[in-house]
Amino acid sequence: MSTLLYAQSGGMTAVINASAVGVMRACAASGVPFLAARHGILGVLEEDLVAPGALDASVLARISRTPGGTFGSCRFDLPPFDEAPALHERLFAVLEAHEVRWLLYNGGNGSMDTVRQLHLSAQRLGYPLTVVGIPKTIDNDLLGTDFSPGYPSAAKYLATSYLEASLDLASLYVRKPRLFVMETMGRNVGWLAASTSIVQRLAPDEGPHLVLLPETPFRTETVFPRVEETLSRLGFCSLVVAEGVKDEAGRLLSMRGVEAGRYVQLGGAGLALAQRLAQEFGVKYHVAVPDYLQRAAAHWASPIDYEVADRLGEFAVETALAGISAAMVAVERQGEAPYRYRCVTVPIDTPANRERGFPPQWIDASGCGVNEDFQRWLAPLIEGTLPTPCRGGLPDVHLPAWESLPKRCAPWSAP
Amino acid sequence: MSTLLYAQSGGMTAVINASAVGVMRACAASGVPFLAARHGILGVLEEDLVAPGALDASVLARISRTPGGTFGSCRFDLPPFDEAPALHERLFAVLEAHEVRWLLYNGGNGSMDTVRQLHLSAQRLGYPLTVVGIPKTIDNDLLGTDFSPGYPSAAKYLATSYLEASLDLASLYVRKPRLFVMETMGRNVGWLAASTSIVQRLAPDEGPHLVLLPETPFRTETVFPRVEETLSRLGFCSLVVAEGVKDEAGRLLSMRGVEAGRYVQLGGAGLALAQRLAQEFGVKYHVAVPDYLQRAAAHWASPIDYEVADRLGEFAVETALAGISAAMVAVERQGEAPYRYRCVTVPIDTPANRERGFPPQWIDASGCGVNEDFQRWLAPLIEGTLPTPCRGGLPDVHLPAWESLPKRCAPWSAP
Repeated sequence: MSTLLYAQSGGMTAVINASAVGVMRACAASGVPFLAARHGILGVLEEDLVAPGALDASVLARISRTPGGTFGSCRFDLPPFDEAPALHERLFAVLEAHEVRWLLYNGGNGSMDTVRQLHLSAQRLGYPLTVVGIPKTIDNDLLGTDFSPGYPSAAKYLATSYLEASLDLASLYVRKPRLFVMETMGRNVGWLAASTSIVQRLAPDEGPHLVLLPETPFRTETVFPRVEETLSRLGFCSLVVAEGVKDEAGRLLSMRGVEAGRYVQLGGAGLALAQRLAQEFGVKYHVAVPDYLQRAAAHWASPIDYEVADRLGEFAVETALAGISAAMVAVERQGEAPYRYRCVTVPIDTPANRERGFPPQWIDASGCGVNEDFQRWLAPLIEGTLPTPCRGGLPDVHLPAWESLPKRCAPWSAP
Repeated sequence: MSTLLYAQSGGMTAVINASAVGVMRACAASGVPFLAARHGILGVLEEDLVAPGALDASVLARISRTPGGTFGSCRFDLPPFDEAPALHERLFAVLEAHEVRWLLYNGGNGSMDTVRQLHLSAQRLGYPLTVVGIPKTIDNDLLGTDFSPGYPSAAKYLATSYLEASLDLASLYVRKPRLFVMETMGRNVGWLAASTSIVQRLAPDEGPHLVLLPETPFRTETVFPRVEETLSRLGFCSLVVAEGVKDEAGRLLSMRGVEAGRYVQLGGAGLALAQRLAQEFGVKYHVAVPDYLQRAAAHWASPIDYEVADRLGEFAVETALAGISAAMVAVERQGEAPYRYRCVTVPIDTPANRERGFPPQWIDASGCGVNEDFQRWLAPLIEGTLPTPCRGGLPDVHLPAWESLPKRCAPWSAP
């Protein structure tokens, strides 16, 4: 009997499991057997598959709100057929053994290229497969969609955390000037760092006083005077810096305070920046690096993000069953206050292996901040709160021990 | 007319403003005029006082849930009278000018010593002052109270954040072993790092696999084998490390990977530990340093913590009005599941300048973890959740622009 296979790929988000649940619910509704691969496309290669079967609504709800990837993830970009024919042949042998006719891949721009490669191979091999991508990334760097599920929740978490920390900073400000630096993820794009700027709408003096993005080279001649001015005006200064901020020569900020060649990356951009500023201005500093916390904070997820992640999972099933292949499901903004959207499909070439940078028109002229147009764009995506079911005071996560299906193919190891 | 003066001191917590509100509400109820000093005892010295006047319940509720110190804080330990008579005389001149008869100081063990010094000076000078301490510290290192307000919220935040991050880590674990290290605050005591161990009750395999406290010297011969065993069993390993962890020679862990004398502290214990383990085991790592976030996370405050912080503010007013001086208000545990307590007073000598370390009987024999007795102690303190009022998707904080009272004394500058 024809089955639908779903897998998760790349770095996790707070809401990726809501997409998994949207897929499972839609499969159940349409009577299509649901399979999941463990650890993304690598799980397909290893024939590491699970068939959760019928799950009741309360279990699905708990899975939805559990961060991390319930089926596990991988970082693996499938090369084109011609570069690795044995890999593609193995993949399709596994798909055939489990009668997979629809494959949904939930990931970022690299994963969307895997969707493309799978579609091309299916055509080449004459295998009847419909492949659909479901977007997911806290980086928000997927083209073709108003936002990527995962980003609004990370943005809401970072803005909230920044606001709270800045109030703590401000409490102590008067007697000795001090700095606070928060380092966000974002190697190439500044969407996450920029999200904290929304605090300026609520509490202008709380900052962030500078927001440094990978899209703009770091220049001491613009950053230092602004820090100095803020320190003398308020007695404190707070900066948000994306981990991928580079200087004008393209070197990561985090390498600057370091003996040449000693470490590839030392302590990240936040610490490097704080140390340089502390040396320059003789002030104390604190550095926060939320790291995984920002992409896993399901306890403070964005309601819209959660809803859209779930709905896109469901819509991906509808899209696949309609036979639309080599597509990514996406959202198109239809209104704000409250946010309204519709689900659409975009050709997989739009997001595959391409990167949606932070728009230059939203960066201010100094390169040290972002403007209100961006804040207006972000505002409806982080509105509201979701109650978080708890057990023992912690989020009531669900950690199923999925049972692997019996293998039907020969064992496989990487060629 | 006799007034009551309140001030906040030391590092902030998510719930210290709930104590301020408890004080304000009790003053209003008993008809005692309420004053606050800006920035703790320094604000008294500088005669930087505010009189908020009558505030309605909705404003008080918003102040309660706002992190940071609404009246500002300071780090300043008042020396004994004999070491700084001019300082004490200035303080009492200001108190007299504003007819202060009751002084409530909200802080940690250093602040409790300030309470003691103020009481002794009042006796010496024959000034009719009742001085009461209100406990507050995320470190939980105050003696004489079941817990310090601020700690349960920080513990709940750290345990939740750790759980969420560990689920993210586990999603990617299979193919390449990896480490996650979370660094908590705690220079001398391990209460905060230990709090994450409560995740083991919910999800044993999620760890934390090692919890390293300042109370136990770091020993590679116990840490490394446990990391190795966990990596080979699960494919990942996560550690929680207090910033103040030291080796057997008493050197901070964070200085070990560094050229001698080059930096006093480099990147903290978390990064230093991750780098050493990564080098030893050839694995990738992530390091999270929540820093201020852990003591400001009002959006995820513990309901009990919030309630107790408020109630202790109120009880401090009752205590002061009853004329009990040189005391700290505190909680005595009366039951668990749910937590029950009563408010008590303890002599100020109990907490002043003393430190309540993490109890040795709750540390496991290897020194790499804590046991279930601690988890049972902590559990009732982090139960449940509070709805967080939001505006624009962020906590609806209240940032009053308190107006300073006209000065009645001569200007003052530090002698």
